[in-house]
Amino acid sequence: MLTIHHPPVNEGTSRIPLRDKRCDPGEGRFTPELVEALRRELDERWSAAADRTEQMAGHALLAPGKMLRPVLLLTSAEATGADSAPLLPAALAVEYLHVATLVHDDIIDDDELRRGRPTVHARYGTPNALVTGDYLILTMVTALSECPASPAAVLEAARVLAGAGADVCRGQVRESAMAGDPTRPVADYLEMAALKTGALFRGACRAGAILAGASPEHTDAVTRYAEHLGLGFQIYDDLLPYLGEHTGKPATSDVANLRPTHPVLVGYDRADSTGKARFTEALSGTLPAPEAHRLMRELLETTGALELSRSRATEEITAARDSLAGLPGTEAVERMRTIADLSVDRSR
Amino acid sequence: MLTIHHPPVNEGTSRIPLRDKRCDPGEGRFTPELVEALRRELDERWSAAADRTEQMAGHALLAPGKMLRPVLLLTSAEATGADSAPLLPAALAVEYLHVATLVHDDIIDDDELRRGRPTVHARYGTPNALVTGDYLILTMVTALSECPASPAAVLEAARVLAGAGADVCRGQVRESAMAGDPTRPVADYLEMAALKTGALFRGACRAGAILAGASPEHTDAVTRYAEHLGLGFQIYDDLLPYLGEHTGKPATSDVANLRPTHPVLVGYDRADSTGKARFTEALSGTLPAPEAHRLMRELLETTGALELSRSRATEEITAARDSLAGLPGTEAVERMRTIADLSVDRSR
Repeated sequence: MLTIHHPPVNEGTSRIPLRDKRCDPGEGRFTPELVEALRRELDERWSAAADRTEQMAGHALLAPGKMLRPVLLLTSAEATGADSAPLLPAALAVEYLHVATLVHDDIIDDDELRRGRPTVHARYGTPNALVTGDYLILTMVTALSECPASPAAVLEAARVLAGAGADVCRGQVRESAMAGDPTRPVADYLEMAALKTGALFRGACRAGAILAGASPEHTDAVTRYAEHLGLGFQIYDDLLPYLGEHTGKPATSDVANLRPTHPVLVGYDRADSTGKARFTEALSGTLPAPEAHRLMRELLETTGALELSRSRATEEITAARDSLAGLPGTEAVERMRTIADLSVDRSR
Repeated sequence: MLTIHHPPVNEGTSRIPLRDKRCDPGEGRFTPELVEALRRELDERWSAAADRTEQMAGHALLAPGKMLRPVLLLTSAEATGADSAPLLPAALAVEYLHVATLVHDDIIDDDELRRGRPTVHARYGTPNALVTGDYLILTMVTALSECPASPAAVLEAARVLAGAGADVCRGQVRESAMAGDPTRPVADYLEMAALKTGALFRGACRAGAILAGASPEHTDAVTRYAEHLGLGFQIYDDLLPYLGEHTGKPATSDVANLRPTHPVLVGYDRADSTGKARFTEALSGTLPAPEAHRLMRELLETTGALELSRSRATEEITAARDSLAGLPGTEAVERMRTIADLSVDRSR
């Protein structure tokens, strides 16, 4: 179905410095060979499109992403002691699913730039972008079925990744139901983030172990790693707008979208009644976004919420690191620990 | 993941006369027990939603559709000599995929009613509807993986259905690229319709045969049936706005959406230069929809296009019927032939 293109034509493009809306850790610094291999494979499969649908999918896929989820799939397989090379199609499959969610997110948020290029809907229109996202989800299944593992393992990996994708959907629906409400318990946030962000990390790591034929214990170890990583990653992502780091995403985006992020809920919980009223105002959508952002930043600083959220992110990362103890693929385990560390220190 | 609900609560609803945007043949008249069993299964799985995402998916799934595609999957399995009962989850899977495309189509067309109820985006908003469609596509994989067939067969069925879904996407992209252009060769239309409409019929029939463990010859026979049925079905669908039949879809919808349907392309091809100019005008979007529709109807009558398209649809249905010769499940073959007949005579 996909046209194989021989010389990778836009190797240059894939080295453009990232100005990402989402801030994934690193730029392939921790696993440069793996990221390069994944990008080369995407180039070969997608840079010569057979039709407009493939062309639009390629536009989304060939943006210089950091391939975090496919790297997690491959590295998890290695951590359980297996060779990851045969799992390349499965690694691409998880990227297809991830990029599908980005294409659809960009429609919902009406964002015009992603990874330094026009989003699919900005370039090809909303109807085409909607269809491109669907096409990418379906292509996940096709790519998985190319894996040379046993049909039972591939089917189980497909079930795990489809379940992860469904959980991402549930998380998105919950997130939008929480919009504008700083009174929600932090527990609601943790459930939402585990679905919206954690599920795909979890699915990638678990699918890698399953396809590698890992034992249930080893599969559970990489699963726990992914769950902690997902939460630490998302909480740190919530902090970025208030840390003055360059993330590619406008610092005002979270308040503009009325998101009760982790520090917001933690800060609201600690504020007195006057403070609570100001949190509610900052998240009400009635102030201009820059002003709401400045107010929120001040509230998060005075309540100590930034430090509390940062501690929680760090705890999750420590738990992620610890989950991998005893896995046989020591080199891969080291890389997974580096990925975890970089998730809460993206300026490095 | 899905909550099983014991007594089917909205059996009554499923008997409401259909006012469908898409006009599928029959209302379960040809296979009432099968349709009833499918609706009961959907009710059991979806009428008690565990969360808002399932609730929205259930809203789309429990509308009283005619279950044409799941019926084709089950009946194809029977036509090759197998028992279809174990394939119920796969039949639901193909309905999930179909309904996902409807939910997303309704966003694109901004249609507010489908199968007599508010569309998902009209009721829950566009962001939620977008996510609901994604969720349904992913749930297709989960449902398929419940099938008690061999993992290799289930994986192959998943590959076939995902490929069919990807072809539907390609067809939609092609259709939107053709909008407003009556000068396209009929061959472009035939390719587009084979993707947009035929692919899912083909995927359903083929998946049914594969899961039934049918021989390659029998699998190919139901595949050819589905290809001809898909084309006959779509061409007849194109005729409905000009035949004065009640389809649930406004008669002006095709001209309003500037669609160069089968009769339009056939008529344009046969028209003289004055006629061609009028076809172009009717499909330009410059006239009010009712006036454009009247003009198009007149042009299709005077060029003989309606009769030509009807003949072509009938030929496809005959070819669909003939494709099934020699299959062992004679009763199922008879039902599949009845489905084909009803596809070009929906008033019966």
